[in-house]
Amino acid sequence: IETKLPKVGTTIFSVMSHLAVQHKAVNLGQGFPDFEPPQALRDALSSAMANGLNQYAPGIGTAALREQIALKTERLYGHKVSPDSDVTITSGATEALFAAIAAVVRAGDEVIVFDPAYDSYEPAIDLQGARAVHIPLTVPSFSIDWQRVRDAITSRTRMILINSPHNPSGAVLSSADLEELATIVRDTPIVVLSDEVYEHIVYDGAAHESVLRHPELAARSIVVSSFGKTYHCTGWKVGYAVAPAKLSAEFRKVHQYLTFCTFHPAQAAFAQFLASNPEHYLELPAFYQEKRDRFRKLLTPSRLKLLDVPGGYFQLVDYSAIRDEDDLAFCEWLVKEGGVAAIPLTPFYEKAPGTRLARLCFAKSDATMDAAAERLCKL
Amino acid sequence: IETKLPKVGTTIFSVMSHLAVQHKAVNLGQGFPDFEPPQALRDALSSAMANGLNQYAPGIGTAALREQIALKTERLYGHKVSPDSDVTITSGATEALFAAIAAVVRAGDEVIVFDPAYDSYEPAIDLQGARAVHIPLTVPSFSIDWQRVRDAITSRTRMILINSPHNPSGAVLSSADLEELATIVRDTPIVVLSDEVYEHIVYDGAAHESVLRHPELAARSIVVSSFGKTYHCTGWKVGYAVAPAKLSAEFRKVHQYLTFCTFHPAQAAFAQFLASNPEHYLELPAFYQEKRDRFRKLLTPSRLKLLDVPGGYFQLVDYSAIRDEDDLAFCEWLVKEGGVAAIPLTPFYEKAPGTRLARLCFAKSDATMDAAAERLCKL
Ligand SMILES: CSCCC(=O)C(=O)O
Ligand SMILES: CSCCC(=O)C(=O)O
Repeated sequence: IETKLPKVGTTIFSVMSHLAVQHKAVNLGQGFPDFEPPQALRDALSSAMANGLNQYAPGIGTAALREQIALKTERLYGHKVSPDSDVTITSGATEALFAAIAAVVRAGDEVIVFDPAYDSYEPAIDLQGARAVHIPLTVPSFSIDWQRVRDAITSRTRMILINSPHNPSGAVLSSADLEELATIVRDTPIVVLSDEVYEHIVYDGAAHESVLRHPELAARSIVVSSFGKTYHCTGWKVGYAVAPAKLSAEFRKVHQYLTFCTFHPAQAAFAQFLASNPEHYLELPAFYQEKRDRFRKLLTPSRLKLLDVPGGYFQLVDYSAIRDEDDLAFCEWLVKEGGVAAIPLTPFYEKAPGTRLARLCFAKSDATMDAAAERLCKL
Repeated sequence: IETKLPKVGTTIFSVMSHLAVQHKAVNLGQGFPDFEPPQALRDALSSAMANGLNQYAPGIGTAALREQIALKTERLYGHKVSPDSDVTITSGATEALFAAIAAVVRAGDEVIVFDPAYDSYEPAIDLQGARAVHIPLTVPSFSIDWQRVRDAITSRTRMILINSPHNPSGAVLSSADLEELATIVRDTPIVVLSDEVYEHIVYDGAAHESVLRHPELAARSIVVSSFGKTYHCTGWKVGYAVAPAKLSAEFRKVHQYLTFCTFHPAQAAFAQFLASNPEHYLELPAFYQEKRDRFRKLLTPSRLKLLDVPGGYFQLVDYSAIRDEDDLAFCEWLVKEGGVAAIPLTPFYEKAPGTRLARLCFAKSDATMDAAAERLCKL
């Protein structure tokens, strides 16, 4: 059988997690916390099972959970959405991203993505017979050069895929960025796909500039988020998409045949937890900022240069003072010889830019951070 | 936005479940049990959460669950598979079907499906830019006319999609059918996709003829199953695909970007439950045969004509003695006026055959069955 995805191997996240286990390394690679979701959330899930919510959920998600998401969207971003027609629960943000791309993008279309780009975007585009048009972010700020975007637009451009807070860099888009984007897509058929899974993790008092804050953009966007990053349960795989009714209708056509519905007890648990703790996520910036600052302090004696982290839970480090090799080689050396798993940036680029950067996840307990920092400071 | 799936509306399962609630009908439509998964399974899931299995599972599924599936496959079908390279856990059988189609089928290809065909098959094929070639099953046995298959094969045929026990009819393929299939695909590049989600539910002492019993077919097949039907937890959405390493490699490339991984605590729970109760599924035929026979007996006084049910948990009924209208009209009337939700067969056909058949799910408690039968006998 000839492959439909010749450029795709095993995702770097699986590769590095596997190497981490193999070499007993501290795993700061794949992005997940090493602490637990709230006890009340786990209890709510067990109760849902005991209460008989073990059969299919509605394909679009339970009414109660869609309602909670609509409430949050209005409360946080001032944007009113209908839980019935605009919100769809998915099996993680990954499914939502795939469904959005499959629903909107056709063979021959072009999708603008910004490199480094999360590695699921391009294969999903390729499988539509479409083409990803890669625009590199400006290093080291990882900001968008909007003139390059204007230059890249063609009659085939069907979608622009943005991601803020950005993975892997932590860069965040500003309201000025959203204005630029709105100007560019105005009077075009371009759909915006906005990956906002780290929406609740922005630092230093900044507010997340969701496209849902921008009515003109919100009217043509599919916004993807997930509970995994927000409630410390990446393995529960509950995500969602918010989009205007017409876009949601197309999204749902695909979603219903991708997974049909999502693990029912978790939907009930999230609905209950969000209703009882509607502002739990307001604690997240302080929670993770303390971790970010602690991790940065631990690394001060190291020879790693730390880039700024405006959002998300990843620290980019410049390792050029330690080794002069590309990031794939460095991360392989680091997991084997240095005892720490990191994520290289090359897999997220069409053309590797030759930067000497690696990504470290700081969504970790003090003990994990200490162990990692001890090793990293020895390099 | 122009739709990519012009033939698709909301899946009939969602439509009928919605109508059932609206009209307070007894829901024998969408296929799910109204009783619970084993308590030990729910307890194991809660334990997995308590034991910290709340972050990403391996993308291909946990080693322990893949191991259990490999053990079962050998024990039941005499077919050795490698848990590492041949078994992949998915977010329900629906995801596995979609991933298999997306991994193998290319634009311009043809996929042979048998009507009535489960409604997710064709949209998944359409989204590849490929074409479903529909061959109607022979009514009322719902058997395959292999000459029609031979006649339908072209140089573009890339896949044949079979489903046994068959949904909605309950028909099962025989070893002679598998021989016919093997002869047809021999010396072609055709991949077999075998939807076997009802593999453990066959009646009257028959054995399920999995393609995994047939080495030549197994070497070119992707076999899809699910724990939802077997362990009474359709809402848990854990399925899997078994395929030779080369096919699995392509399958996994797509899977990792469709959902990446599946709800982790449920994987741990199934692995533990299967290890402790390796032959639990052997009780299923007797369990459901008792329900099937009870339901049929309850319906004897009705004016419905009952078709044979060799497998699965659906009863097809001929309603022509009650109303002379197509099955869509009948099922709409039935849910509104008769107080019972059923599933019409028309949505599963390219060309509605004009049969007067509806599908009733008998995976129900005695009380549900009694309530439904009381209403059905009044028609
Ligand atoms: C789906 S595994 C990768 C998790 C993640 O988002 C990341 O590490 O960037
Ligand atoms: C995914 S909802 C439909 C469930 C099912 O398999 C059926 O009712 O046939």
